Amino acid sequence: MTRIFLFAFLSLGLAGGALAADLSLPARVLPAPHSDDISPQMQAIIANPPNPNVNPLWKTGEEARVSADAGAVAAVQRIPGLLERLGLTMTAETIGGVRVHVITPKTLPAANRARLLVHVHGGCYVLSPGEAGTIEGILMAGLGHFKVISVDYRMPPEAYFPAALDDAMTVYRAALKTAGPKRVAVFGTSAGGALTLEMMLKAKALGLPMPAAIGVGTPMADATKVGDSFYTNEGIDNVLVSRDGFCDAATVVYAHGHDLKDPLISPIYGDMHGFPPAILTTGTRDLLLSNTVRTHRKLRRAGVEADLNVYEGESHAQYGRGDNIPETREAFGEIAAFFAKHMAR
Amino acid sequence: MTRIFLFAFLSLGLAGGALAADLSLPARVLPAPHSDDISPQMQAIIANPPNPNVNPLWKTGEEARVSADAGAVAAVQRIPGLLERLGLTMTAETIGGVRVHVITPKTLPAANRARLLVHVHGGCYVLSPGEAGTIEGILMAGLGHFKVISVDYRMPPEAYFPAALDDAMTVYRAALKTAGPKRVAVFGTSAGGALTLEMMLKAKALGLPMPAAIGVGTPMADATKVGDSFYTNEGIDNVLVSRDGFCDAATVVYAHGHDLKDPLISPIYGDMHGFPPAILTTGTRDLLLSNTVRTHRKLRRAGVEADLNVYEGESHAQYGRGDNIPETREAFGEIAAFFAKHMAR
Repeated sequence: MTRIFLFAFLSLGLAGGALAADLSLPARVLPAPHSDDISPQMQAIIANPPNPNVNPLWKTGEEARVSADAGAVAAVQRIPGLLERLGLTMTAETIGGVRVHVITPKTLPAANRARLLVHVHGGCYVLSPGEAGTIEGILMAGLGHFKVISVDYRMPPEAYFPAALDDAMTVYRAALKTAGPKRVAVFGTSAGGALTLEMMLKAKALGLPMPAAIGVGTPMADATKVGDSFYTNEGIDNVLVSRDGFCDAATVVYAHGHDLKDPLISPIYGDMHGFPPAILTTGTRDLLLSNTVRTHRKLRRAGVEADLNVYEGESHAQYGRGDNIPETREAFGEIAAFFAKHMAR
Repeated sequence: MTRIFLFAFLSLGLAGGALAADLSLPARVLPAPHSDDISPQMQAIIANPPNPNVNPLWKTGEEARVSADAGAVAAVQRIPGLLERLGLTMTAETIGGVRVHVITPKTLPAANRARLLVHVHGGCYVLSPGEAGTIEGILMAGLGHFKVISVDYRMPPEAYFPAALDDAMTVYRAALKTAGPKRVAVFGTSAGGALTLEMMLKAKALGLPMPAAIGVGTPMADATKVGDSFYTNEGIDNVLVSRDGFCDAATVVYAHGHDLKDPLISPIYGDMHGFPPAILTTGTRDLLLSNTVRTHRKLRRAGVEADLNVYEGESHAQYGRGDNIPETREAFGEIAAFFAKHMAR
């Protein structure tokens, strides 16, 4: 690999009159990582070409829903095999009018019998409707041996901000009643990671108790495109690819005119004092690496016990790709162990 | 900022016959990050143009030493002011024939009176001789309120691998005798982070007790250029800039023909079972981000309690830039709190 020569120049910054330096980077070829500590399965995922579907820049909930339904087909097809391999049953129910899927291990360890996880799925607030949204919940139920309630929150065009959060809160309240706060944990990835944080802000505002722990997977914690890895990992993250891609368009559709800097959409701007112990997960190529580490730092500054795990070479949310991937088993195992450590029996 | 269009192609991989995908990235302009949660001082450091001194590719210890002495002048000039502002005294001594600087707070909290930190400085195994190597130790003594012994280990051309490690072990043995293992912690950054890990491997091999905790700053844990951020952050890290720069050349000089994959030079390849609790620190733009998170993961897999803090936008070791920088006070405060939590009084 030849050395890259750099040309840097100073320019007057864009924000606040501060002097900012832009860095001109030359074109380059980036090899896929191939260290011994990345599994062959994950190496293949990392080596995938960039997501070719980065460009559906939906303008309406109706447009987004067409894509969401199309994308859900493959996800739903995976579910029977997943449930069987992981020894789970899943039922569709409603809780306080909110659609949920209840995922239950056929054998539940004694320590987890009274414990309950609330799962809020990802998908930029518009993707993974219905059963398609349960896969992360299924993986956690199966790999962590917990009972999981996965919230099938309303999405555009059925409803817009704050419907997803309201639905999640309805299920959270029910979980508090069923299991008690010390036996409840909440988790999710991407929009689900943001929703997990938003739920804590909302619970604080409502005077509800915090759960025992939260799992915050690479959260969409800042919808205003602040976060250095939106730039440094542009085109390198092969899932989200660009900060100006589908996920940004989807968030604008969900917000439906609401201020994107509202902490209930960009929870990095909320007050995290009093949050429960949190475990955060991301990867070095993740477009949301910065927003994960910014959230981690904000939690630490608020005195919250917070663990951060960053996986080598992984793009956005790739740790959750499947039960047959060593890094998925490892990451979910670590999150489950964190929950078990902090939850009452 | 216009969207970047990507051209990706598959190629037969270089290693092990695996199919690897290289990613062709176009030229681009990277703005300096300017989020509200980065201090103005750190924003200015992050916005610095890339280190223009990336190219002295030393071939001998003598060549490296000329650069080291030149670079030490500015560092040494900072020391009197640092000691005064932080309320410290510093004396040059020897321990078992090894040169050290003993850094002592003028007022030592009762909890820290019997505690002792061993500091191994960074500088790619060839830079920061003499007093120039004490700055990180001074910052920790002053910001963490600990007594610190900073090891002025022999460097090329005075001596080569494993002299640095041998000198550090001599001081570590003495610290064990003085304070007892439960009151000792070891820390360092970059080559000092690698040396900290190497010391633990060596202590295990020698049957010496582990210290109470270690602080592993962005360690040069893999001298074989494995680690994805060597590529993803190439030209973005404004300190190290390139994996083929001065630090790589320096490590080869230090190794002096020894296998770079030896765990005592690349500790990522060592067995970390039984290591003490560790706190790791890096930044999103760090060329060694990957080797920090790989080390973190390896520690976790070995059952070691390990905290990882990743600072937004920072390049290699920028968290340690100065006592007047909020991120330095924060990072050293977090490391000090971790030590205090794990050390006996």
